Amino acid sequence: MAMVDVSDKAEIFREATATGTIKLKPNTVNLIKTGKIAKGDPLYTAKIAGVLAAKNTCSLVPLCHPLPLTNVKVEAKITDKNTVEVSATVKAKAQTGVEMEALTAVSVGLLTVWDMVKQYEKDADGQYPTTAIENIHVTRKLKQV
Amino acid sequence: MAMVDVSDKAEIFREATATGTIKLKPNTVNLIKTGKIAKGDPLYTAKIAGVLAAKNTCSLVPLCHPLPLTNVKVEAKITDKNTVEVSATVKAKAQTGVEMEALTAVSVGLLTVWDMVKQYEKDADGQYPTTAIENIHVTRKLKQV
Amino acid sequence: MAMVDVSDKAEIFREATATGTIKLKPNTVNLIKTGKIAKGDPLYTAKIAGVLAAKNTCSLVPLCHPLPLTNVKVEAKITDKNTVEVSATVKAKAQTGVEMEALTAVSVGLLTVWDMVKQYEKDADGQYPTTAIENIHVTRKLKQV
Amino acid sequence: MAMVDVSDKAEIFREATATGTIKLKPNTVNLIKTGKIAKGDPLYTAKIAGVLAAKNTCSLVPLCHPLPLTNVKVEAKITDKNTVEVSATVKAKAQTGVEMEALTAVSVGLLTVWDMVKQYEKDADGQYPTTAIENIHVTRKLKQV
Amino acid sequence: MAMVDVSDKAEIFREATATGTIKLKPNTVNLIKTGKIAKGDPLYTAKIAGVLAAKNTCSLVPLCHPLPLTNVKVEAKITDKNTVEVSATVKAKAQTGVEMEALTAVSVGLLTVWDMVKQYEKDADGQYPTTAIENIHVTRKLKQV
Amino acid sequence: MAMVDVSDKAEIFREATATGTIKLKPNTVNLIKTGKIAKGDPLYTAKIAGVLAAKNTCSLVPLCHPLPLTNVKVEAKITDKNTVEVSATVKAKAQTGVEMEALTAVSVGLLTVWDMVKQYEKDADGQYPTTAIENIHVTRKLKQV
Repeated sequence: MAMVDVSDKAEIFREATATGTIKLKPNTVNLIKTGKIAKGDPLYTAKIAGVLAAKNTCSLVPLCHPLPLTNVKVEAKITDKNTVEVSATVKAKAQTGVEMEALTAVSVGLLTVWDMVKQYEKDADGQYPTTAIENIHVTRKLKQV
Repeated sequence: MAMVDVSDKAEIFREATATGTIKLKPNTVNLIKTGKIAKGDPLYTAKIAGVLAAKNTCSLVPLCHPLPLTNVKVEAKITDKNTVEVSATVKAKAQTGVEMEALTAVSVGLLTVWDMVKQYEKDADGQYPTTAIENIHVTRKLKQV
Repeated sequence: MAMVDVSDKAEIFREATATGTIKLKPNTVNLIKTGKIAKGDPLYTAKIAGVLAAKNTCSLVPLCHPLPLTNVKVEAKITDKNTVEVSATVKAKAQTGVEMEALTAVSVGLLTVWDMVKQYEKDADGQYPTTAIENIHVTRKLKQV
Repeated sequence: MAMVDVSDKAEIFREATATGTIKLKPNTVNLIKTGKIAKGDPLYTAKIAGVLAAKNTCSLVPLCHPLPLTNVKVEAKITDKNTVEVSATVKAKAQTGVEMEALTAVSVGLLTVWDMVKQYEKDADGQYPTTAIENIHVTRKLKQV
Repeated sequence: MAMVDVSDKAEIFREATATGTIKLKPNTVNLIKTGKIAKGDPLYTAKIAGVLAAKNTCSLVPLCHPLPLTNVKVEAKITDKNTVEVSATVKAKAQTGVEMEALTAVSVGLLTVWDMVKQYEKDADGQYPTTAIENIHVTRKLKQV
Repeated sequence: MAMVDVSDKAEIFREATATGTIKLKPNTVNLIKTGKIAKGDPLYTAKIAGVLAAKNTCSLVPLCHPLPLTNVKVEAKITDKNTVEVSATVKAKAQTGVEMEALTAVSVGLLTVWDMVKQYEKDADGQYPTTAIENIHVTRKLKQV
C-alpha cells in the first residue's frame, strides 16, 4: 500500500477544473435566489467550504499527496430552476496532478449546499425524495512544462 | 450565521443511509474485480476513507453539529460493468439527523475510488472523458422516539 | 499533565458569549461596507470560519474537553469607522463550560477578517502599522441546572 | 471565492513576527511565576499550542495558502504584574507572506494561557470581569529576494 | 466495513490506562534530567502531545468511535538511565472502551520524546542504532455500571 | 520553543524506513491469516491508516516540520505465530529528515491492528494480558545530495 512514488517526477505547473450539480426543489432554488434561506447563503458558504476542503484533500483521500496549492477557486451558482452547480479550479507547481483537490472541493461544496437547505428539501416523513448530487466530473486538466 | 440551535431537542435514535455511484470504464471495473489495480483495493480503501470521513463531517460542512456517532457502516461494490456503488449507514443518539454524515461518507468513498483508479481512466491527453460521480442521495432517514 | 477530570460533574446546560474587535483603516472598513473587498465578504467568511473553529477548539487548545456543541452562532459587523467586531455564542449540555469555544470562534473570526483585507492594510513597506486585534473577552457565561 | 492566485510569484524567503497579550489578575500572574497553576505551565503549553496552530493556519483561515514553514518560534513571558505576552516568528520560502501563521500562533497561544488559568480568573458568578486578550499585531514582516 | 454498532449499549463509566517506553542513550537521558535538550522539555512536550492525540484518536484509527472524553492524563518520566516512560489514563462515560485513546496518547507521547531528542540519538551516519519504542500496552481497563 | 530553523538548509532527497511489531495471541494471528476478523482486514486497514498518519505527522508531533512527502509506503504482515509487523518508508525532497513520518506511520498502523482485533485479545475481565506494541525503530535513513 503506497502513495505513488513521485520522487523523480519534475515539479511542473498543474491545473484542474471540476464541476458538479445538486438537484433541488424549484422552491428551494427560489429561496436561494432571493436570499431567504434561514441558515445563511448556501452559495457563499459552499464556496468557502470547498476552498477549505481542497486544502484538506490528502487527509480525506488516503493515497493523495500533500501538495502546495497556489490557487483554489470555487464557484457556486444557480444554473436552472432546480439546479445549483459548484465548480472548482486548483493550481499547483507539483509532481502530480490536482484533479482530486478540485473534485474534493466540488464534492464538499455540494454537500454544504445540501446541508444549508435541508429543511426545505425534506418531505413530511423527513425523507429527501428528489435531492441528489449529480455529475461530479473533471472538465479540464492541464500540465505545463 | 449559526448552526441550528438544537439545545432543546430531545436526544433520540437517528439513522440515515445514503448511496451514490461512480461511472468507470468497463476495463477499470474489470481490473477492480480481478484485484489488479496497482494502487491497492479501491473498494476496501473507499470503505475506510468513508468511515473516517463520516466522523470528520462537522469539520468539512460548516453548519453541521458534532455528533456522537454510534455506528458508521460503509459498503462499496461493483453494480454493473461500468459502475461502482458506495453506500453508508450512520447511527447516533442525537438531537439532529445524521444524513450529512452518511452523504459525506459516500462522497469521500467515491472520491477515493476515483483516486485509486485514476491511471486507468485518463485518456491520452490526461483527461477524464467518461469518469463521473453520480446520484448521491439519501435512501432512508429514520428517527425513533 | 491532565485535562481537568469532569467525570463526576453533572451534564448541565452551558452557554458562553465572547466578543472581540479588529482595528482597520477607515478605507478598509468602507470597502467592506460597500462590498468591494477583492477576496470576498470578510464578515460572512469570518462567521463561517468562526463556527468551524468553535468545533475545532479541543484540537487547538491542549487541555480543552471535546464537547457536544448544540449551537454555535457567530456574528460579525462594522461597529465604527475603523472597527469590525466579531462575537460568538456557544451552547452545550456538558460537564464543563464553553467559553473557550466562544473565544476560539471570535479569535479565528478576527484572524479571518485580517486575512481577507490584508492588501488594504499593508503600507508601502508591507508592514501593518495600524491593524490590531483588540479586547477579546467573555461577555457572559451561564449555567443552568 | 478564491485564494489569491500566487502561481506566478517567485518563491522567496519570508518572515513575519506577531505578538499579543493577555491581561490577567496579578494573583494569577504570580501563580504562573511561582509554578503553581494546577493545570500545568501556561507559558510552555502556550508555546507548544502556538507552534502547532501555526502549522494549522490554512485549515482555520479559509483563504490562507498551505505553506512549507521552515521555522516557527513561539515565546511566552510575563511582561508585568498582570500581563502575559505571546509572540511568534514564522519563516518560509514561499510565494506569499507568513504573517497569518504568526498571528494564528499568537492567538492560539493566548487562548491556551486563558484556558490554563481559567479557574483563577473567574469571579464568584463564574464570569471573567477582567480577563482580556489585547493588541494582537504584526511587529515585522520581511521578504528577501 | 463498519465501526462496531454500539447503539444499543448503555453509556457507562469507562477508564483505561496504557504505558510504554522509549529506550535512549544514557547521555540523552542525562540531558533530559538536567534540562539541557536544545529543543525544549521532552517530557512536558510529550504530555501535551499525548493529551491532544487522545482527543484525535477517532481520526487516526479508522474504526474508533468518537467519544466524549471526560479526562485525559498523561505522565512522562525517566525510569532508569536509558529509559523514558509515558503513560496515559483516559476516562469517559461511553458505550465502548477508551483503551485505544490511552494507547494513542502513549504512542504519540513517545514519538514526541523521540522527535525532541533526535539530534542526540543519531550516530555519525545519521542512523538510530539504539533508539526504540518498547512495550506499549494496556495496564488496566475498567468499566463501572 | 521552536521548530528547528531549517531555512538555510538545502532541499535534498530524504528517505527513512521504520518498523515495529505487535504481539498478539496465536489464535488472533490465525484469524487474521484466514480472513476471519469480524471488523475487516487488520493488515490492509493498518496500511491505509499508516499512510494517512504519515501525512498528519506535523499535526501530531509538535516540533515536526510540514514536509511535501513524495512517497509513503506502508507494509503490514504476519511474521510469526504471534506477531504482526508494520513497516513504513517515506520519501521527500526536504530540508529535514522524514524519520518521524515513518515512525508515525508505523505507530498508527500498529494501533490500528490492535483496534481491529481487540475483541480476540481481551481476557474474561476485559484486560489485555499479552497484547503489546514492541520495538518501533528506524531501520534506515538516507540523504542524497
